[in-house]
Amino acid sequence: MITLQLIGIGTGNPDHLTLQAVKALNAADLILIPHKGDEKADLAQLRQDICADVLTRDVEIAEFTLPVRDPVITDYIDRVNHWHDAIADCWMTEINARPGVQNVALLVWGDPSLYDSTLRIAERVSKRVDLQLNVVPGITSMQGLTAAHQIPLNALGGAFQVTTGRQLRDHGWPADADRLVIMLDGHCAFQTLEPEGIHIWWGGFVGMPNEITISGPLTEVAQKITETRQRAKDDHGWIMDIYILERG
Amino acid sequence: MITLQLIGIGTGNPDHLTLQAVKALNAADLILIPHKGDEKADLAQLRQDICADVLTRDVEIAEFTLPVRDPVITDYIDRVNHWHDAIADCWMTEINARPGVQNVALLVWGDPSLYDSTLRIAERVSKRVDLQLNVVPGITSMQGLTAAHQIPLNALGGAFQVTTGRQLRDHGWPADADRLVIMLDGHCAFQTLEPEGIHIWWGGFVGMPNEITISGPLTEVAQKITETRQRAKDDHGWIMDIYILERG
Ligand SMILES: C[S@@+](CC[C@H](N)C(=O)[O-])C[C@H]1O[C@@H](n2cnc3c(N)ncnc32)[C@H](O)[C@@H]1O
Ligand SMILES: C[S@@+](CC[C@H](N)C(=O)[O-])C[C@H]1O[C@@H](n2cnc3c(N)ncnc32)[C@H](O)[C@@H]1O
Repeated sequence: MITLQLIGIGTGNPDHLTLQAVKALNAADLILIPHKGDEKADLAQLRQDICADVLTRDVEIAEFTLPVRDPVITDYIDRVNHWHDAIADCWMTEINARPGVQNVALLVWGDPSLYDSTLRIAERVSKRVDLQLNVVPGITSMQGLTAAHQIPLNALGGAFQVTTGRQLRDHGWPADADRLVIMLDGHCAFQTLEPEGIHIWWGGFVGMPNEITISGPLTEVAQKITETRQRAKDDHGWIMDIYILERG
Repeated sequence: MITLQLIGIGTGNPDHLTLQAVKALNAADLILIPHKGDEKADLAQLRQDICADVLTRDVEIAEFTLPVRDPVITDYIDRVNHWHDAIADCWMTEINARPGVQNVALLVWGDPSLYDSTLRIAERVSKRVDLQLNVVPGITSMQGLTAAHQIPLNALGGAFQVTTGRQLRDHGWPADADRLVIMLDGHCAFQTLEPEGIHIWWGGFVGMPNEITISGPLTEVAQKITETRQRAKDDHGWIMDIYILERG
């Protein structure tokens, strides 16, 4: 029986870690850290730094190379499912290489429930080994964004929709929601909207030392955002960004 | 100039506190704790316990009595706005009573961005005194719910809508969203839906020692939830609950 802990770590600020996360990390005997290639090496380094900061016990840390998605598979869902299978294989390889291991921890970016595949990969692993799962919530990028702009997610008593850049681009503004949170948007999908009457609160690298925020009417700030985003991406090698849109 | 820190504390588990929240509390020279009347005295006590656990400095803690909403005002938005004005008055009274105070902290349930009025009250206060605002994100009840059920918020690449019991009851299932998170529901609004084909993941007191979770097809578990909720509310004096609905 293996205990698998999926530990939300927040979005790049080591102080996003909760006391629960600190305890969970210290209860592990193996911590798995994915390595995403040279470009995003700083993300693996951040996880190493977090461990170095908060571990008060001697816990083994194993980096493994994260598989890449297979570009030959054209269907998006198929491609992602295949990729999750491959990641489950990696976890199993690391665990099987250490027969005595009982408590394995993974550091999940943000919160494990939000546009993250760790829970789906854990489900695959649970079919191969007797697993006790433990989910530790973490600060999300939505909260990093609202904290940076000092704004609420919802209007008073109102609803909001959380969706992706792809959904916004392919299906337009969803019905029955005047406020949207857009994540996983590599191409500034807000540019596909009629900008009149829309306000945007945008954030790149939220919670991190190089955090950037821009907000205003979309008619006025859209270009500033796309340019700032491109420049930050060029400088840094990659970018993560998120935004809220409000209409009416 | 006063620094006002709105510090998310999570949803009842003291270990939800982030390292950032611990530092922010220790940087304060006054912590304001609202008292909501005898019934919810345990909520004020939890905040006192959190302070006792994490403060390493001698910080003044002031409890103040939270005003109640004026039932004479019939319009919902008007009533809430009037209530926020009254709370802003309370904060000002406490601050003005301590002329030397520079760094005031408030412990906000969950995260300050999610169905919480603290940011709106702070805006009122900022019109009366020179204010530097600092928002510290906290674990939300949405994340407490998904962690307890070990489920993601979104389907793979899919959207979800966060809304209230009142909205669901008054306007039905929103268009363009197959997954909903329902909060602020005192009356089990899921009962107003045609239950066929809907799955529910429900949680009461999530993150707390008396956490309760129920999930299943709405056709099978709706009654169990309403009964369990009523019993827990009778036993405890109050309840906070939240749920996810999925259709299709
Ligand atoms: C695979 S999802 C993971 C989200 C994560 N689980 C969370 O709770 O925020 C990655 C997306 O989250 C958002 N994101 C994550 N970290 C971010 C950050 N520090 N700044 C801005 N956006 C971020 C971006 O929209 C990015 O495309
Ligand atoms: C005024 S809102 C505050 C939400 C809070 N700011 C957050 O981040 O979760 C109160 C609502 O949040 C939900 N809630 C808060 N704490 C909860 C808990 N421990 N268990 C279940 N639901 C909770 C319930 O839907 C409740 O009606």
